[in-house]
Amino acid sequence: MEANRYDTYSENTAGRANVADSPERVAYYEELARLETGALWTVANKIEPWAPRSASVPVVWRYQDLRGHVLRSAELVSPEEAGRRVIYLNNPGRRDVAAAVGWLYSGLQVMKPGELASAHAHSHSALRFIMEGRGAYTVVDGHKMTLGANDFVLTPNGTWHEHGVAQDGTTCIWQDGLDIPLVNALEAGFYAVHPDLNQTVTHPVDDTSGAWGGVALRPQVSGWTKPYSPLFKYEWEPTYEALRRYARTTAGSPYDGVLLEYVNPATGGAVMPTIGASMQLLRPGEHTKAHRHTGSFIYQVAKGSGFSIIDGQRFDWTERDIFCVPSWAIHEHANLSSNDDACLFCFNDLPVMRSLSLYREEVVKDNDGHQIPSKPLTTWSS
Amino acid sequence: MEANRYDTYSENTAGRANVADSPERVAYYEELARLETGALWTVANKIEPWAPRSASVPVVWRYQDLRGHVLRSAELVSPEEAGRRVIYLNNPGRRDVAAAVGWLYSGLQVMKPGELASAHAHSHSALRFIMEGRGAYTVVDGHKMTLGANDFVLTPNGTWHEHGVAQDGTTCIWQDGLDIPLVNALEAGFYAVHPDLNQTVTHPVDDTSGAWGGVALRPQVSGWTKPYSPLFKYEWEPTYEALRRYARTTAGSPYDGVLLEYVNPATGGAVMPTIGASMQLLRPGEHTKAHRHTGSFIYQVAKGSGFSIIDGQRFDWTERDIFCVPSWAIHEHANLSSNDDACLFCFNDLPVMRSLSLYREEVVKDNDGHQIPSKPLTTWSS
Amino acid sequence: MEANRYDTYSENTAGRANVADSPERVAYYEELARLETGALWTVANKIEPWAPRSASVPVVWRYQDLRGHVLRSAELVSPEEAGRRVIYLNNPGRRDVAAAVGWLYSGLQVMKPGELASAHAHSHSALRFIMEGRGAYTVVDGHKMTLGANDFVLTPNGTWHEHGVAQDGTTCIWQDGLDIPLVNALEAGFYAVHPDLNQTVTHPVDDTSGAWGGVALRPQVSGWTKPYSPLFKYEWEPTYEALRRYARTTAGSPYDGVLLEYVNPATGGAVMPTIGASMQLLRPGEHTKAHRHTGSFIYQVAKGSGFSIIDGQRFDWTERDIFCVPSWAIHEHANLSSNDDACLFCFNDLPVMRSLSLYREEVVKDNDGHQIPSKPLTTWSS
Amino acid sequence: MEANRYDTYSENTAGRANVADSPERVAYYEELARLETGALWTVANKIEPWAPRSASVPVVWRYQDLRGHVLRSAELVSPEEAGRRVIYLNNPGRRDVAAAVGWLYSGLQVMKPGELASAHAHSHSALRFIMEGRGAYTVVDGHKMTLGANDFVLTPNGTWHEHGVAQDGTTCIWQDGLDIPLVNALEAGFYAVHPDLNQTVTHPVDDTSGAWGGVALRPQVSGWTKPYSPLFKYEWEPTYEALRRYARTTAGSPYDGVLLEYVNPATGGAVMPTIGASMQLLRPGEHTKAHRHTGSFIYQVAKGSGFSIIDGQRFDWTERDIFCVPSWAIHEHANLSSNDDACLFCFNDLPVMRSLSLYREEVVKDNDGHQIPSKPLTTWSS
Repeated sequence: MEANRYDTYSENTAGRANVADSPERVAYYEELARLETGALWTVANKIEPWAPRSASVPVVWRYQDLRGHVLRSAELVSPEEAGRRVIYLNNPGRRDVAAAVGWLYSGLQVMKPGELASAHAHSHSALRFIMEGRGAYTVVDGHKMTLGANDFVLTPNGTWHEHGVAQDGTTCIWQDGLDIPLVNALEAGFYAVHPDLNQTVTHPVDDTSGAWGGVALRPQVSGWTKPYSPLFKYEWEPTYEALRRYARTTAGSPYDGVLLEYVNPATGGAVMPTIGASMQLLRPGEHTKAHRHTGSFIYQVAKGSGFSIIDGQRFDWTERDIFCVPSWAIHEHANLSSNDDACLFCFNDLPVMRSLSLYREEVVKDNDGHQIPSKPLTTWSS
Repeated sequence: MEANRYDTYSENTAGRANVADSPERVAYYEELARLETGALWTVANKIEPWAPRSASVPVVWRYQDLRGHVLRSAELVSPEEAGRRVIYLNNPGRRDVAAAVGWLYSGLQVMKPGELASAHAHSHSALRFIMEGRGAYTVVDGHKMTLGANDFVLTPNGTWHEHGVAQDGTTCIWQDGLDIPLVNALEAGFYAVHPDLNQTVTHPVDDTSGAWGGVALRPQVSGWTKPYSPLFKYEWEPTYEALRRYARTTAGSPYDGVLLEYVNPATGGAVMPTIGASMQLLRPGEHTKAHRHTGSFIYQVAKGSGFSIIDGQRFDWTERDIFCVPSWAIHEHANLSSNDDACLFCFNDLPVMRSLSLYREEVVKDNDGHQIPSKPLTTWSS
Repeated sequence: MEANRYDTYSENTAGRANVADSPERVAYYEELARLETGALWTVANKIEPWAPRSASVPVVWRYQDLRGHVLRSAELVSPEEAGRRVIYLNNPGRRDVAAAVGWLYSGLQVMKPGELASAHAHSHSALRFIMEGRGAYTVVDGHKMTLGANDFVLTPNGTWHEHGVAQDGTTCIWQDGLDIPLVNALEAGFYAVHPDLNQTVTHPVDDTSGAWGGVALRPQVSGWTKPYSPLFKYEWEPTYEALRRYARTTAGSPYDGVLLEYVNPATGGAVMPTIGASMQLLRPGEHTKAHRHTGSFIYQVAKGSGFSIIDGQRFDWTERDIFCVPSWAIHEHANLSSNDDACLFCFNDLPVMRSLSLYREEVVKDNDGHQIPSKPLTTWSS
Repeated sequence: MEANRYDTYSENTAGRANVADSPERVAYYEELARLETGALWTVANKIEPWAPRSASVPVVWRYQDLRGHVLRSAELVSPEEAGRRVIYLNNPGRRDVAAAVGWLYSGLQVMKPGELASAHAHSHSALRFIMEGRGAYTVVDGHKMTLGANDFVLTPNGTWHEHGVAQDGTTCIWQDGLDIPLVNALEAGFYAVHPDLNQTVTHPVDDTSGAWGGVALRPQVSGWTKPYSPLFKYEWEPTYEALRRYARTTAGSPYDGVLLEYVNPATGGAVMPTIGASMQLLRPGEHTKAHRHTGSFIYQVAKGSGFSIIDGQRFDWTERDIFCVPSWAIHEHANLSSNDDACLFCFNDLPVMRSLSLYREEVVKDNDGHQIPSKPLTTWSS
């Protein structure tokens, strides 16, 4: 709002506020301000928009641009100084909260063979998607998970966790995904350093995959009551195999191709209360139709290359690139290969949208459902 | 109760009915009977027992005894006459309701290459566990599932379903498991023959495995709201692999070894509202401890050989044998092989026990937790 | 089945078993019997009926017939001998399981001022609906509830409970409703006498009504996780008031008039996992349309007089009479008063039908939706 | 962060980032910024705080200060210009999002007899708590609710709704409570004006109270599946009566006195997915102990007078005053009357905290659990 103007947001539409400033009114507004109040009609049209206008912008972060900087961070600061050597993705529209998109944080972390970070816990929920290197592992509440490329691991709200790379491994880089901005905004962020700085592994290695990693199977009398998945690691190979098998029996979604959501096997629901994750496969040459919906999405290209059109702008991507789709942004994806499939890993805040009944979707109707880059769209169907 | 006696169930314990007959009382009882009533104290101790006394007895049905008869049924009656050629398991204590144990029905069905049964639907829930043969398939509401040995398939309450064997298959035998006695007892049994006698396959073959057969994955926006699993087929190979992987990271249950319950992947709960199923692995030489609990259980030996002690009686079993454990019967299992594992498939009414809050369990404390065949047990711990 | 005949249940319909006996087949059947098995086709049409055929018959138990006998029981046997002085309702079709209808038990209990029954617990669930007298109370797990006419109280599965009448009260009669036959049939019945024969009241009197008896309110951080309602007493006055208020804003159900189900306020679901309850109001002169559904129902006339037509037979009832509607029986209700409403209390096994996905309903289409007593019905609509 | 400094947030604690700026590092940081990235360790301690630090401050808005301004707004702008005449509460720490506390909006609205606002719908959830006047009503999706002082009404996410005052009523003032800032922050805010500007009342007046306003009762076969309460109006009288009845059987919470949460009677859960509400009673002279927890809370004094100590600062309040408690602020309440109870209405974002597993609580241990105004606290117990 301009200084000294209170009618900036007026709209000349029935049912919307349309109150011109007058000296008497401005005097009134100033009185209200002294009482820590305001007149709703001066801000109503601002705070009740017709549709979401995301503060985030679409961005692609190319791995070839970032990889060198990520590796360099390991030289520039020690683990003891930095805690973790991470280059975080800073959406131009979200620099104030260090978010990659919406209320989601993401960063690229590097760790060298034999390194082990100190253990901590926080009320933020996190996942870690491995990009390169051998020997990475994570310990969560005494459970140790070994990790390879395209695997991901959960470190949920409240768990003690720490990351490391085996002595005989190689330098590892992974993507971290967290709800830090969301939890901070909700004023519910807590952080603790483990009293012993590192925890003891108290279960057999990869035991959560042993207990919960079967197809439609659960351990007898599991007693699991926590609000996140008891399966901490999601492996690439069975996921990719499942996608290919699913692709043989489904036409897939017109908007997302062949998409599987990772779930908490104890409930069939999201992996954590605040973060969902999925892997989707675009068939050779597949170009999906455009739609838009609420929720913020961060993609990593797990396999292949192609492009996405987001709010009319084309973003090319190849393996390991990361890009984001802000809430209510129109988007469509294309696999540029004519003989190989492309896979996109995604994490998002869909569980929040669903828990709070805020999910909404709309599809493009004109131009056969596709955006014309740089031209605005006109007709929609909910 | 003896004719003309009304005090048969008296117990001389505080808090229990203990009313001796007298001429005045007997006259009163007879008057009550004319009003379609009775005096509670004449039956209270009968209808409020201290603990369950199952009407069923433990039985083992040996496949070597039954196989010939099952095959012969295919000669003795035509599919048109019989509908289905099935030898059902008739527990000596449950002949009135044709149950194998408790309120569960089971039978062995045979079908020859090229045969296809007519389609029907019923409010009974069913599963079908393949014992031998190649080429078996089942169609459920337009979804066709191909089936091999140790696979099982659901045909839930209300679905149109039919079974067949491919022209190029071999004679197939499978075990049927149903809740027929339960649903009849609850006076909720409905049956319908498909108007066209057979249904059309409307989805790609094995499509439910495509959509729901991944590890901790679900199809996007599944919209599944039915009370049973959207995954209709549970395959032996991934199950056995999961059991072996689980065995590497768990000590297992002292009473059941390494046991995984089959679940509805959309909810993490039982595969159907009235029937649960599990596969358990006994390690070479493993002999579990004894316990008892409510619920009725039918086992098929999917692999290996061993024995179970049920209420003090030893039952030896080998691959394809079927045996039952009645509610509240003490039981323990042993794998007789010193170098190979044994696997028991089981279906049961645990979902009923759990939905109705009737599950209860007790473990044997004396003799290091083992029964001495033919000697009653004395000490227990809930 | 007749002795020596195995084809009694044959039906000459495609998709149904239709196998005539022959000497060879009979010999085969006899061999099967020796192996504790049978041929399914000899019983298939029996155990897979087209629709439920209830073993129960409709009955009305008139209070004027029973009241004297109930009072006399208190003279004929002492509380110490009988435990409880109860006349139970014995459906002619269910005498083997002492059920009033289906798998539900009901009885009329009497207690004199100053009497207190011993405390016990069982895995059967129970409720108690007060018919007459002042000063009745029930203690459940240390909570004491005072009770007046048309109030009812829960004594759920596993709770310690005992009934009494205050010293300054009057002789009280109430109706007990239990799932004894169901839980016994499911072989899950346990019974225990309280070690001290009576329990101590450990909470303020009627405290569960204090905590949970508000309109759409719950106590802060209740922590309630048990599978039954934390509100143990349901009072007549607020219920009747709610019915009358509801009647002013609803047309009601064509089949049930103005009906409210009692719920567990912590979940909005049934009061106990195995027993549901409701109170319904028939407006002056109201005559509902006929329908049938699965589930067994016991009604007590809480107010007024009228009649019900059940499977073509008219049963007149007045205040305090009890009647039952068996599963799948066609029924309709009528209030005979032209200026006063009539109220029916009901308890039933609907929660079982719903948990196990066995509820099904069908409405009468011909004759404007009404039965003609003693004439069978022909057209239906699910 | 200061301009040109990147080490502002360093902490000298094991497990926290502690990286001093150096020319080489600063050059590196600047390169990262060009790639829309940053070094996590420069912001880690900022974005992972040890505990929440709310942006909101405690405020009390006194009705005697605001009432005149609220009434004046009705003179200063017409309903047509303003849409709604509302003075909103503008927390000094949340002016950027027009929140009263955290992500909750609140305002005082005035309407004169005969006025009717235009109907709209939005994805924000709202409630309306009546402060004064006769004849207020709200229409939600065709259901009309009449409202008196201390009643509140829901206008949930997605419903068409409009407010009015009857021609024969008096000028009404009420408090609005919405999740506008939250839904906007989550980029999921949609708004629509009703195509006819006003909707038709399609149900009997107050019908949702008829159907759902009983004590532990639900209408038969309600079919309600929406994520918010089917009871749209919560009335003061039965609530106050319930509080007083509850007070007779409970000691209450040491931190909140006698508190009842308003619930969705179909589920026992919160009234809407994003907003919870409660009414609490402080007995004459009651002074609660201090605690703190996550979640943002807005209180209106429905009855009586007293004070609250919030983060060491005392706020006195009397009937109709409004005050807020920010997330993780220490707070305790006191009723200053020695012979009358005091009642606080509250709405909050507890359902969000619970759905997202972010609720956490801590109690003050020293000074007998009370704050000493203006002195910081030291010892805590989770």
